[in-house]
Amino acid sequence: MVVRDEVRKMKSVAPLVAAMSNEARCKALEKVAEKLIEKQDAIFAENKKDLEAAAENGVADAVVKRLKFNEDKLRDVVAGIKQLITLEDPIGKVTLDREMDEGLRLTRITCPIGVIGVIFEARPDALVQISSLCIRSGNCPVLKGGKETTFTNRILFGIIYDAVLEAGFPEGCMLQVEQHNEIDELLTCDGLVDLLIPRGSNAFVRYIMDNTHIPVMGHADGVCHIYVDKDADIEKAIPIIIDAKTQYTAACNAVETLLIQRDEELIGRLMPRLTAALAENGIKLRGTKEVTDVVDRVVGENSGESTEGKNLEYESISEDEFKEYLALIVSAKFVDNVDEAIEHINLHGSHHTDAIITENDETAARFMQLVDSAGVYQNCSTRFADGFRYGFGAEVGISTSKIHARGPVGLEGLVTYKYKIVGHGQIVGDYASGKSEFHFKDL
Amino acid sequence: MVVRDEVRKMKSVAPLVAAMSNEARCKALEKVAEKLIEKQDAIFAENKKDLEAAAENGVADAVVKRLKFNEDKLRDVVAGIKQLITLEDPIGKVTLDREMDEGLRLTRITCPIGVIGVIFEARPDALVQISSLCIRSGNCPVLKGGKETTFTNRILFGIIYDAVLEAGFPEGCMLQVEQHNEIDELLTCDGLVDLLIPRGSNAFVRYIMDNTHIPVMGHADGVCHIYVDKDADIEKAIPIIIDAKTQYTAACNAVETLLIQRDEELIGRLMPRLTAALAENGIKLRGTKEVTDVVDRVVGENSGESTEGKNLEYESISEDEFKEYLALIVSAKFVDNVDEAIEHINLHGSHHTDAIITENDETAARFMQLVDSAGVYQNCSTRFADGFRYGFGAEVGISTSKIHARGPVGLEGLVTYKYKIVGHGQIVGDYASGKSEFHFKDL
Repeated sequence: MVVRDEVRKMKSVAPLVAAMSNEARCKALEKVAEKLIEKQDAIFAENKKDLEAAAENGVADAVVKRLKFNEDKLRDVVAGIKQLITLEDPIGKVTLDREMDEGLRLTRITCPIGVIGVIFEARPDALVQISSLCIRSGNCPVLKGGKETTFTNRILFGIIYDAVLEAGFPEGCMLQVEQHNEIDELLTCDGLVDLLIPRGSNAFVRYIMDNTHIPVMGHADGVCHIYVDKDADIEKAIPIIIDAKTQYTAACNAVETLLIQRDEELIGRLMPRLTAALAENGIKLRGTKEVTDVVDRVVGENSGESTEGKNLEYESISEDEFKEYLALIVSAKFVDNVDEAIEHINLHGSHHTDAIITENDETAARFMQLVDSAGVYQNCSTRFADGFRYGFGAEVGISTSKIHARGPVGLEGLVTYKYKIVGHGQIVGDYASGKSEFHFKDL
Repeated sequence: MVVRDEVRKMKSVAPLVAAMSNEARCKALEKVAEKLIEKQDAIFAENKKDLEAAAENGVADAVVKRLKFNEDKLRDVVAGIKQLITLEDPIGKVTLDREMDEGLRLTRITCPIGVIGVIFEARPDALVQISSLCIRSGNCPVLKGGKETTFTNRILFGIIYDAVLEAGFPEGCMLQVEQHNEIDELLTCDGLVDLLIPRGSNAFVRYIMDNTHIPVMGHADGVCHIYVDKDADIEKAIPIIIDAKTQYTAACNAVETLLIQRDEELIGRLMPRLTAALAENGIKLRGTKEVTDVVDRVVGENSGESTEGKNLEYESISEDEFKEYLALIVSAKFVDNVDEAIEHINLHGSHHTDAIITENDETAARFMQLVDSAGVYQNCSTRFADGFRYGFGAEVGISTSKIHARGPVGLEGLVTYKYKIVGHGQIVGDYASGKSEFHFKDL
């Protein structure tokens, strides 16, 4: 299969898919859900082949967990599809309706983006979610999943594609590519592919961004911060930090850097509890010298009376070495106040998701106004940055760009708009000469 | 001046500009308008230097016309500023307000994009318009205008920058770069510049797109089409075609290609009138052999009785030679029906603006649904594609991308959003384990 030829075909049917009615798109999704349930045994059998191959190749347990597609996962994706069906149609919304002059009417109407390439990790449920979002929003997806799920992806794609064809979608409206080298071919399809959404490692996303002229939506890094303010409630701070680091350590919205206000009272309250909690959860601390000096003292003080924090693994590093760990390691430094925290985050963060822990709403408001990130939180875990948790049904990815979509991207990020004007022979010359005049009136 | 250092400083003040109130931004614009009027004599004196240099360098008349900044232009830009002040604030709009669970509230709020680099042609009024749009929307602009307006740009920038500082904006919130080689330095400022808007020739825009990792908004080509359907009213078709080609021939929204339905009755009605009108307006026709054969016949028939169309300059070319002329030349071919017109436009157009001439509203609706362009018009000139004519006050450019803004880009295209969550210590672990559950409720 030559990817470019297939994509060219897709480009020519994309306007037809964009013109499918809301009913037709919802009916297609119902068919997809039906067929997935109907063919579950066949799906599980194919998934078993992927799991066996993973076992043979010594794939890590964490990855194997994601590869698995069982009754639970099937139930989840079907529930996701049903939720998508209930959401308001994102297509065909009139967002501007303006009379420019008598008999000259301008409307702006939402429409699908067109052909969207999504390159995603080895998770069969992701294939179903991304396909469903595209079907709901009238877009044509080119799907490339992780190679560890080849068998499962193949049968899932076949089922979904058959279902949408049965529902009246045109042939060529969905495409699966399986070979890694086909990604490079896809990257050259500017003019045919309207948007690329790569998910995966930093290096991979960066590679995509650097090697295509197609617009790319996504994020490379996820260096998320938690700033603990002097007015923080420690009972909230500790569980939030532990959750943000451990609930899913490899996620882009996991916390990587702690900023703590340089306030004696706060440090006295926080550090013994924090060192104990980090130690208890096996999290290694990499702090500036100032931080590790405090930890030395805290651990020393504790050693006589309690073992809390005693087992903490920690080391002193320079601020330049702070980075995205995606592991049970967290950086830490002290800052004078919320403004220094904001400055640090805007300069060193990745504009993904950053939180402040404080009971002072004024300080929080300042933080949330001035931190230039897709998500700015007060008193909750950075791990909430997720399309499902935002109530979007599902997400195709999280964007740290400020262009187009930002943050978790659901249906709304898969939509653009076009301007329509209906006239009766009007020409611009008449408006330039003053013979006619605009009389803008929103309808 | 090292551009990167200045841009880094701008990046750090951008959140402060983003936090300026609506009142402060409007007041700054009022000050700009006041000062422009106050200092008009000095502005005109500087403009005279640019005009003299242009005369010395033999700059083309059309360009000189654009360089000129006189009372009329001043009145227009001041009127534009006043209009901008009256428009609804694009910043701080709550576009989502959702309770995720008790005491966990998600809001989505519009905010400025941040640092925007705009590279524009030698038009002093463009500098004022772009600056005003950025001030109104809380963005920090890096401005690079055409070198032919160096003196005028310098004084205009100084006046505007002084005015916003007086209004309380932070130092470094606006920047002018004057040297062409500084553009290349600007292109390397990814991570600091959030968006680039290049305006100018195809080759220039393409160069920008190919040489930066900063997101670029704009358009390279503007190959606009007019499709004349068999149900067209010729009384509308002819003036629209002539206006779309001649009203501003060098504009991106000028028509370049005519598609005419292969219908004997239509061809009989249209072609004698069209050839006459093209000839009368000095427009050269480059048609397929089929089209020029008809022209041969029409001109021959006319020759005996009338001179209409006799002076038409025309030649036969292959369809592959159709292109963007930005001159008094138009391509033409016959198509079987609206579907072939749509296919041609989607394949060969630049997704800018395309029009259908027809009295059949069903045919028009099909065309406007399936043509994949930023603007799709029925019975009016493609020249209407413009921010001012859409009632946006002004535009920073026209986008043919389907990502972010599409079509003429006014205030709305200079805005992004951020998600805020205010919680009370919630962690994701509790929702994953089932201890807590989301209860989405839009407020």
